[in-house]
Amino acid sequence: MAFSPAFAPRTSRVSKLSAFKSDIFTTTEVKLAETTETIVKGGRDLFPLLPKAFEGIKKIGVIGWGSQAPAQAQNIKDSLNDAGADISVSIGLREGSSSFAEAREQGFNEEDGSLGEMYKVIAESDMVILLISDAAQSKLYQKVFDTMKPGATLGLSHGFLLGYLDSIGEAFPEDMDVILVAPKGMGPSVRRLYEQGKEVNGAGINSSFAVHQNKSGKALELALGWGVAVGAPFLFETTLRDEYRSDIYGERGILLGAVHAIIEGLYRRYQKQGMTPEDAFLNSAESITGQITKKISTRGIKAVYDDMNADDKKIFETAYSASYSPSKEILQECYDEVRCGNEIRSVIMQGDRVNSGKGFIGKIDGTDTWQVGERVRANRDDDKIPLNPFTAGVYVATMMAQIDVLLEGGHSYSEVINESVIEAVDSLAPYMHYRGVAFMVDNCSFTAKWGSRKWAPRFDYILDQLAYTAVDNGVPVDAQKISDFTEHRVHGAVQECCKLRPSVDISVSAPTSTKEIVIK
Amino acid sequence: MAFSPAFAPRTSRVSKLSAFKSDIFTTTEVKLAETTETIVKGGRDLFPLLPKAFEGIKKIGVIGWGSQAPAQAQNIKDSLNDAGADISVSIGLREGSSSFAEAREQGFNEEDGSLGEMYKVIAESDMVILLISDAAQSKLYQKVFDTMKPGATLGLSHGFLLGYLDSIGEAFPEDMDVILVAPKGMGPSVRRLYEQGKEVNGAGINSSFAVHQNKSGKALELALGWGVAVGAPFLFETTLRDEYRSDIYGERGILLGAVHAIIEGLYRRYQKQGMTPEDAFLNSAESITGQITKKISTRGIKAVYDDMNADDKKIFETAYSASYSPSKEILQECYDEVRCGNEIRSVIMQGDRVNSGKGFIGKIDGTDTWQVGERVRANRDDDKIPLNPFTAGVYVATMMAQIDVLLEGGHSYSEVINESVIEAVDSLAPYMHYRGVAFMVDNCSFTAKWGSRKWAPRFDYILDQLAYTAVDNGVPVDAQKISDFTEHRVHGAVQECCKLRPSVDISVSAPTSTKEIVIK
Repeated sequence: MAFSPAFAPRTSRVSKLSAFKSDIFTTTEVKLAETTETIVKGGRDLFPLLPKAFEGIKKIGVIGWGSQAPAQAQNIKDSLNDAGADISVSIGLREGSSSFAEAREQGFNEEDGSLGEMYKVIAESDMVILLISDAAQSKLYQKVFDTMKPGATLGLSHGFLLGYLDSIGEAFPEDMDVILVAPKGMGPSVRRLYEQGKEVNGAGINSSFAVHQNKSGKALELALGWGVAVGAPFLFETTLRDEYRSDIYGERGILLGAVHAIIEGLYRRYQKQGMTPEDAFLNSAESITGQITKKISTRGIKAVYDDMNADDKKIFETAYSASYSPSKEILQECYDEVRCGNEIRSVIMQGDRVNSGKGFIGKIDGTDTWQVGERVRANRDDDKIPLNPFTAGVYVATMMAQIDVLLEGGHSYSEVINESVIEAVDSLAPYMHYRGVAFMVDNCSFTAKWGSRKWAPRFDYILDQLAYTAVDNGVPVDAQKISDFTEHRVHGAVQECCKLRPSVDISVSAPTSTKEIVIK
Repeated sequence: MAFSPAFAPRTSRVSKLSAFKSDIFTTTEVKLAETTETIVKGGRDLFPLLPKAFEGIKKIGVIGWGSQAPAQAQNIKDSLNDAGADISVSIGLREGSSSFAEAREQGFNEEDGSLGEMYKVIAESDMVILLISDAAQSKLYQKVFDTMKPGATLGLSHGFLLGYLDSIGEAFPEDMDVILVAPKGMGPSVRRLYEQGKEVNGAGINSSFAVHQNKSGKALELALGWGVAVGAPFLFETTLRDEYRSDIYGERGILLGAVHAIIEGLYRRYQKQGMTPEDAFLNSAESITGQITKKISTRGIKAVYDDMNADDKKIFETAYSASYSPSKEILQECYDEVRCGNEIRSVIMQGDRVNSGKGFIGKIDGTDTWQVGERVRANRDDDKIPLNPFTAGVYVATMMAQIDVLLEGGHSYSEVINESVIEAVDSLAPYMHYRGVAFMVDNCSFTAKWGSRKWAPRFDYILDQLAYTAVDNGVPVDAQKISDFTEHRVHGAVQECCKLRPSVDISVSAPTSTKEIVIK
């Protein structure tokens, strides 16, 4: 009896990848909770090793010009130049793309072959870094595979294409190497911090990397070389499958979908309890983006609770205790939907509906919540933003539930913490604080935008129906849930991961364009 | 390149099944809009034809004792007795089932072999009517198939099992007949109206029927005979695939999920506009279940609009015009998710989570909306329930959008109207009026309960974000949408279908137990 992936047993492997060994780069071990992860520390001092890591590669084709492509192409080119490697970097774009002009401005041009039609560039490249959108990858992958040189390496910065292939029961051609380097920040930050890294030691965006197929036997060194060339201060190992699962799941959860829902629900609740709309917004949205996430970023998740007075701790405990299980139920469902392929099929079908005029994606930031939010932000006084303990309880409970679902799914601590904590508080919250969560949702990648619209209402309803109802009915605090939280092993691992953060602030206070806030 | 069902082309066949021909039962043609459907008029006068229709069947096994099984087993037994047919009807239950006692009370017993362990009954039956829950069907189907006699017929009252097999790329064994008779009402009504049918001509619950596999060449006659024996006044043809798609989709839409969402959203909106909670409930929930659906039931969808004064018409038009497209977007998504198998995988996975303790399904009727609703119902004065024109516009727009998605999906008018109009206004609205929509959601079948929880929040959010925002921003009425509504061909077809309704009221004002409100 054949079973679909939907009903395959849950991954049960230990949340630890086997230690890898590089012949070129020095590895380090880092202890995260009960696990040990092998990582590579990057840096400009490693650039002389790049020619060996890229051995056999004469031409790199970077395909696309979205958020990641300009940053990666320029960083790799600069790094290889610095190392004196005789390797060219070319940009490939679809015929007639409006991005040709921008690529030319950044020094790529048709004359020297560093800019061209995508399939021409693909056909000539020894390494193809495919950075076109998820939807485009799902439509064009077959022609990309067919066009690649025999023995060329496919590089990805997101596992979506594997997710798509999984969802239709297909796989990459067996005769190619497939590797991943996924910088944990948006393209413009990847470029900006790389440039800072020329002056400030340790500046750069951390990356995960993965070797999915290693036909040549050289895939690991090339992946590490790519990560170093892009400017990662630290490289963490993952798998292509874990990467797409945690990434697609995370943006539906605390990164975008769940945080949107928590704000909408609490904004309504606080008004029903008598607050003005402005105060309700201050105590929900502003409290999360202006206080709670900042505290987590600087002092860890538990500090939000530890720093409270006794009264606030009681309120936090009530909210945490009531919210953890309802949030976890939706998060587990979301993880399962991603894991079994349903979620990727949904994204693709929504893309098809939009293209055929049967679906559209209207803006969501026109509702009362975000209209009031605009006024609140305009009159903002940072010192007057409250750290509402109820809001903190709901938000932290959802973050912890997201962490637990990923750990139970077998993901490494570095990945769990990045997709549930660091990306939320360091990368996205500052933008949300600047323009509001709904604006962020309206302006991120199609996969993330669509997914957060799909899942946010689920979190809102279940918290309203089960968590807040329990609070209002005086259901007592579940002491076990609170001690599970305070004693959770993730807190120590977060401290360790924070030591491996770049030494400069990766966020910017005011994005200069919407492109700046594109998350993959 | 193999493609998953997700990306298979949308069904494009004309919304008309080929006219079927029976050698036993007289067929009639009925014109519904631009289509003609072939139907069979049932009735007690046809019982003498049953022995011929059931030719070759000596023993019928009805498996399960949920909502449909007791009703169908008793009706079939009574009808065959009336016809003097030498065919036995036995109930098959899982070992140790608590339903043995109830089945005995209804005259089935182990002594004469009319009650027994399910696989024993299955092994002995020439026709197996499988009426266990969706989840049980998905777990046990292989053993059921393996246990059936060679040449025995499989009867279903819902296409879910085909949906499940589709979702995992499997099929029914080729060597058996597979037929469907799906009564368009809950089991207790199927029994009650059958008993009324002994006195009142035309009493009974209409059914759809389908022949999915016809190995013996006799499947059509048996399906029609089964429908007549169950007491259907009219039998409409469908396919097993169309049945499960429209059924699973419809309960997520206007039957349960969408109506729940519309009420939650408008209840909030009307309070924000200054109404008391009680008035807001009266103008949302009570207006739908106590006025709008009653008018649709007696005089059709368009009468809701036609009967309004000029001012109310303007309000209706504003609400309709703003709501139709957002509602349709979610409905189209839902239809596509059902069609491609995602939705069925979701239901199965949620069942697995519940069974493994990773998921739970908490009650949803504890929120403020339904607490206020209980008070409003307790003090209800039917004459004071308003027909709010804004509520009517949103509700009718969603009903019309549901109809359009099904018609575009190629479903027959009789099925479209049943799953979008008749079941909503005749079968479910009266129960919702009695106990509230949330109670109904909390107490219906797992597939429906879970599905409406999943989809209701989506309708709520999109209406809030796109429809009500447009109204508040003064976006003008789309005259084309209003004329598409008033001139829609479905209105005439609804009138025709209403002529084919049973001549007695199929609803009851006060359900005697939760079982009464189980919808499949």
